[in-house]
Formats: sequence, structure tokens, C-alpha cells
Amino acid sequence: MTQKFSHYTCSICDADYAPDEVTYTCPKDGGNLNVILDYEALKGQFSPQKFMLLPEASLWRYINLLPVDDPGGMGTPLHRAGWTPVYQPKRLAKKLGLQHLWVKDESPNPTASFKDRASAIVVARAKQIGAEVIVAASTGNAGAALAGMAAAIGTKAVIFAPKTAPPAKVAQLLVFGAKVLLVDGNYDQAFDLSIEASRHFGWYNRNTGFNPFTAEGKKTAALEIWEQVIRSLPEDGKPLTIFVSVGDGNIISGIHKGFKDLAALGWLSQMPRIIGVQSEGSAAIANTFLKGDESIKPVQANTLADSISVDLPRDGVRAVRAARETGGTYITVPDAAILSAIAELGRVGIFAEPAAATAYAGLVKAVKDSVVEADDPILVLSTGSGLKDVKAAMQAVTEAPIIEPTLDAVKKVL
Amino acid sequence: MTQKFSHYTCSICDADYAPDEVTYTCPKDGGNLNVILDYEALKGQFSPQKFMLLPEASLWRYINLLPVDDPGGMGTPLHRAGWTPVYQPKRLAKKLGLQHLWVKDESPNPTASFKDRASAIVVARAKQIGAEVIVAASTGNAGAALAGMAAAIGTKAVIFAPKTAPPAKVAQLLVFGAKVLLVDGNYDQAFDLSIEASRHFGWYNRNTGFNPFTAEGKKTAALEIWEQVIRSLPEDGKPLTIFVSVGDGNIISGIHKGFKDLAALGWLSQMPRIIGVQSEGSAAIANTFLKGDESIKPVQANTLADSISVDLPRDGVRAVRAARETGGTYITVPDAAILSAIAELGRVGIFAEPAAATAYAGLVKAVKDSVVEADDPILVLSTGSGLKDVKAAMQAVTEAPIIEPTLDAVKKVL
Repeated sequence: MTQKFSHYTCSICDADYAPDEVTYTCPKDGGNLNVILDYEALKGQFSPQKFMLLPEASLWRYINLLPVDDPGGMGTPLHRAGWTPVYQPKRLAKKLGLQHLWVKDESPNPTASFKDRASAIVVARAKQIGAEVIVAASTGNAGAALAGMAAAIGTKAVIFAPKTAPPAKVAQLLVFGAKVLLVDGNYDQAFDLSIEASRHFGWYNRNTGFNPFTAEGKKTAALEIWEQVIRSLPEDGKPLTIFVSVGDGNIISGIHKGFKDLAALGWLSQMPRIIGVQSEGSAAIANTFLKGDESIKPVQANTLADSISVDLPRDGVRAVRAARETGGTYITVPDAAILSAIAELGRVGIFAEPAAATAYAGLVKAVKDSVVEADDPILVLSTGSGLKDVKAAMQAVTEAPIIEPTLDAVKKVL
Repeated sequence: MTQKFSHYTCSICDADYAPDEVTYTCPKDGGNLNVILDYEALKGQFSPQKFMLLPEASLWRYINLLPVDDPGGMGTPLHRAGWTPVYQPKRLAKKLGLQHLWVKDESPNPTASFKDRASAIVVARAKQIGAEVIVAASTGNAGAALAGMAAAIGTKAVIFAPKTAPPAKVAQLLVFGAKVLLVDGNYDQAFDLSIEASRHFGWYNRNTGFNPFTAEGKKTAALEIWEQVIRSLPEDGKPLTIFVSVGDGNIISGIHKGFKDLAALGWLSQMPRIIGVQSEGSAAIANTFLKGDESIKPVQANTLADSISVDLPRDGVRAVRAARETGGTYITVPDAAILSAIAELGRVGIFAEPAAATAYAGLVKAVKDSVVEADDPILVLSTGSGLKDVKAAMQAVTEAPIIEPTLDAVKKVL
């Protein structure tokens, strides 16, 4: 067991567990477990400038703050997860009347979504504990990420996906050589079945909001935001406001965890403000946030943003806290606003899938409702490539005209 | 005009032209123009170690060997084109009985294909000559790349695509805000119409095998291969053998050009051997190579690898020479082998579109036919993401079973 990994703490009852004492959620109340590092030891060993492995252009540059050992896999896609670009779309900033706008684009990840971060760390953990098969339930991106990261280093993957998952996402799973089972049911049924199967067959389960290591992978985006943006902001200025699309709540929890780690190390001068954005049709966590408590009530999810379409969010409590504890909030947007956001991002060269564009749609609404001010430094996380869901993209744009191959026909349509 | 850009030379008649004397092909015979740099001046100014801009993680690291000025666009996707990963898929190498195998994966490019390289340089050139609209004919990837790179810095793009282009590719064009005209005809008709339109409206034309700057963009892949792989090979060992999928011939020509630039600078100890791979259903250039001359005869292209499905290759002559002058050859593969290659690459975590997997299919055939030896250092170029053409990917794999959400159903299918 790697020494920097101190213990787990339950996010509900605060019970502590040793790293080898539990595997998934709290045995008492089923709460999600937070991975706690040995911050004092890390503080003594590293400075903010020195803990990154600088030539490593992937999330493994932060191995010193991750609760896993080096999984190997150099020269494979496993070493290309993370370290994604941060763009400064000046035309969008101008249009919104903002002075400081960044978009972090996750589409260059090996399987073209944010989820590669979580899967990379889970694959590393599986290797460390000697698990030979990794299983996950997924509407698509998490499964593709697991399939891709597992393929990279030759680990077996089994994916349970609802049979309604978009064909583009299923094709990716299959091409990566995963065993795919399309469940005649919704995401929640696929989730439960994957847990039952992992217990029965002894597989290691990657499920989001269940396996504590996914949030540890996702926190690497916070570490990158810190390195790429926050460290160049004035220390006494306004904190960074971050817009994050929210489905099951694990990405926003992971981002929050990354900043909490940096704060525990004393390396963060101000906690960023984290704003969660949900589709109106899948707003269980936003509902809870707005009610003011932590009790998550399931919804009948219905949104075109399939990657954040979730009836019962599995990481809702921590997701509510991510906004509440950082002075952030939750915003909900209709599908029409998500489609507009796809087109807006496209015009500056960023092709986002609906769930990814949802965060930008939230920013548009936040500007309109004065949730943010013109001089706030703002970062929008775009979590996956538009190529993942081309049908939605087609809805975001006007169809191209078909013309005869003549100059007259060109003149006519211009 | 940038000083390192000396002149053009026609690839057919060897006529020289000053940089501002011509725009596209040779006025005498329509031959593709080679961009000639001032190699003596560059040699005096730089060493092999020193001409790269090292912190620049994009093709702009090679600005000192490119015939354009710095186009700006820092903080946009324009500065994420190129500098793609090179993987070492050990399981594939073992399966093929090879000792040294690399795969260069172009899918992390901003629009998920190799074509971003060409479009980035064309966008820079357009800016330099004050062109406000850029036009291209494209089966998809080149158009998406132009649309994306133009969107990145706010230049207008017009794309002529055959109406048969896959919806995933058209959606990308539209999302990037390009004006798209779907031509009721094939690629060649779209190509001719785009030239007619660019003449009529005064647009700058990006067409492959027509605009001399596309090959200059594509040569950056050769510079990367040199930096990432060749420089670590023993100087007195075997040369690197590179497998490149070939459609209109411009990628293989661009790769060859990059190595010729390095040779002209005296920085390349051995010319790599370049092997072109075509689909049997679109083999005009391979046919010419095998005939032994340079006369390109059009074919009726018919292959599922739509990005290399070309009746009349526009850069055929230089493409033939890329193999002939480097001790390489041409190989053709059937669609079934391309589908197998998609599945093989997927199993090590690389999701390639059909045209991209074609190069790997060529390697498989080359191994079988002893065109390469076990100890040859070999690099396969994978030119674009499998998400570009999910329908083809579905053909490469067996469909996933649909099951009831019960453990018994899981047991039954395993």
C-alpha cells in the first residue's frame, strides 16, 4: 500500500477505515468514502513547485498526490489521460461581457472524455490490488474510458450499459475489446447489476459514486486548473469560479476533492467557487442544493445530455457540498440552452457533447442572472468531445443545403 | 513574406517561382508546387537540437522550419494541432513478431484527425496574405479541420462536401460555424466547384493537392517522428519504416517533404523508408507505383475507408515518389483487413477510423509478405479518431448482447 495514502473517511458518518479495510462504500451507511492522504508527510516532502513530474504530459505528473503507485504503461494511452488544454476564447468572453474566461477541454483525452481520468486511477488501483477484471456500469463515457484504459495495459474490462446508450459510445466499448452487456433497463439497473456481478465473480468495480478511486482520478483536473490558471491569478484578487456539468455528482466531487487536497497542503490561497450545472430534466442534485439539505430524491431523468441523465445520483451528497462549501451554487438549464451552448463553443473551435456544453449553458444563465460579475475569473469545464453524440450536434445546427455541382447553385445559396 | 521561405519549385517541370508569384499549382502544367526553404540560412541559424520551440506542445514548435509567420492564436485550438503521441503497443508488436513498433495517433488533434496540421498552416498563410474567407472541398476530415482551425481564430470557412459524407463529419463542420454546401456529386466534383468558387469570389482555397501549404502542415508529422523516434535510433542501424494510409496522396507527400527538409539541413542520418497503403477499392496511386511510372489513372473508388476514397488523386505524382525515392513501396488491402485493423488497434486502446487503420492493415500484410523484417524499426501513422465513423467501427466488432437486468442473465451470456 502506497505510504501517502493514509486512510478513508466516510462522507456521511465520518468513520475512518484503513486503506485495506474496505473496498467501496462505508459498511455502516453506504456513504461514499473520501481518500485521505498523509498531508503532513507530503508537506514535508514537497513544495507546490516541486511535487509535479514536469516532463510528464498526463495526469501522472501528479503521482505524488495520488493514492496509487505508478502503474507503468509508459508508451500507452494510459499515459495520455489528463493534462488537457485550457483555452481562452476571447470572442466568447466579449460576447458575455467577461474579462477572464477559460475553457478546459477534455476531448483530447484518449477516449475523448473526462472519464479517462477516473479510469486511469482505477486501472492503477486494480493492478495494485491484483484484480484481473474491472467492471463498470456506464451510459457511455465512463465505460469507454474504462475499456480504453484497461486495453492500454491489457487488463480485462466488463461493461454494463443501458441498451439505450448511443451507438457511438457502445462502438467505442466494443472496439476496445471490452465485454459489453446491454441491460434492458436504465442506468440505475445497470449500476446495481454490475455490483451484484462484481460480488459474484470477484471483479473489481469501477462504478462512479461507489468506488472511492474515481474521485481521486477526477481531482487531477483540479490540480491542472490550479497549475494552469489559479497560480497565475493575483493572490489577493477574486477566487476562480468554476462551472461543472453535474450528473451523478462524481466529477464535481472530484474537482472539490482536488482543491481540498491542495488546501490541506497549504498550497491554495483561496478556495475556488464551484458552480454545478444540471439539465432541468435531470436535476436531482440541484433540487437538493436549492432545498438546503443533503437528502437526494430521485427524479425521472429526461434530457438529451445523456452523459448527465441520471435518475438517482450516486454521489449527490458530496456534489451538494462541493457548491455549498465553496460559496458556489447550482444552476439548471433546459435542453434548448444546451444545444445553443454546443453551437457557441463550436464557433471558437471547441466541439462539445451535450453534457460538456451544459457547463457553458450554465455560465450563460449565470451571466444573465448576475451570479457572476464581469471581472470574475471564470473557468468552464467541457467534459467530452462532440463526436460522442453527433445526433445531438445535428440538432444544434441548421442542416447544410444540398446543391447541384455548379457555380450558379453556389451563388443561389449564398 | 517570411525570409526562410525561398521559393516554389514545380514537382513536374522543376520551374521555380517566387513566393508571391503564384498561389496554387504550376501555371505551366498544373503540377503541385514544392515549398523550398532557405536551407543554408537555416543551417547557419539553428542546430538540430535548437530549432524547436521546446515548451510549445503543438506543431508550432517547428515554426522555424515552416514557410509562414507566427499566426498568433495562443490559447486557442490552433495551438493544439500536432505534437501527437507516439505509442509503443507491445502486445501488437509481439503478435506480429516485431521488435520495434510505434503507432503515432492523430486523434488528440483538436478536430480529431491529422488534417488539423494542414489546416493550421493554411489558416496562418491566409492571415499572412490577408485572405478573409478560406474554402475547401472535403470528404470530411480536411473540411472539419479547416472549419475548426478557422473558428479558433475567427476566420470564415466555406466547405464543399459530397452529400454522401458521413453525418458525424458534416455535424462537425456545421458546429464549427462553417458555411457548408453539400454537393450532389462526388469528391472530385466538389473539388472542382470549390476552385471555381474561390476564383469567382476571391476566397483562399485550401484544397489538398492544390494549395502548396497543406503539405507544409503535414510535414510537421515527419518532424515529430524525427524528434520522437528517429533521433533515439542507432545512427548505423536500420532506417525507420513508416506506414502511411494514402488517398489523394498529400499526407504521404507531406511526410516525405518533412524528411527531405531535414535531409537538406543535414540533420537526418538516414532517409526513412515510406510505405504507402491504399484500400484495394481506391488504389490509383498504388497502381501507378506498381506500373513503374508517374501517370495517375483515375479509378471508380469504392471502399468503406471514406477518408481515402478518391477517384482521381490530386497529389499522386509526389505520393508515388515518396515511396519510390525512399526505398519504400505501396501495399493494397481489402476492406475486411481494414475492419480487422480497427479491432486490433482498439485492443491496445487506440480507436482509429477506417482510413487510419488502413496503415496498420498494410503493416499486417507487409509482415505476412516479408516486406519488413522482425528487427526493422517500424512506425504506423494512425490518422484519425474512430469516433469520426462509428458505423464502420460497428462493422469491425460483434454486437453486444442485450440482457435482462438479472445475475442469471449475466451468467448465461458469459
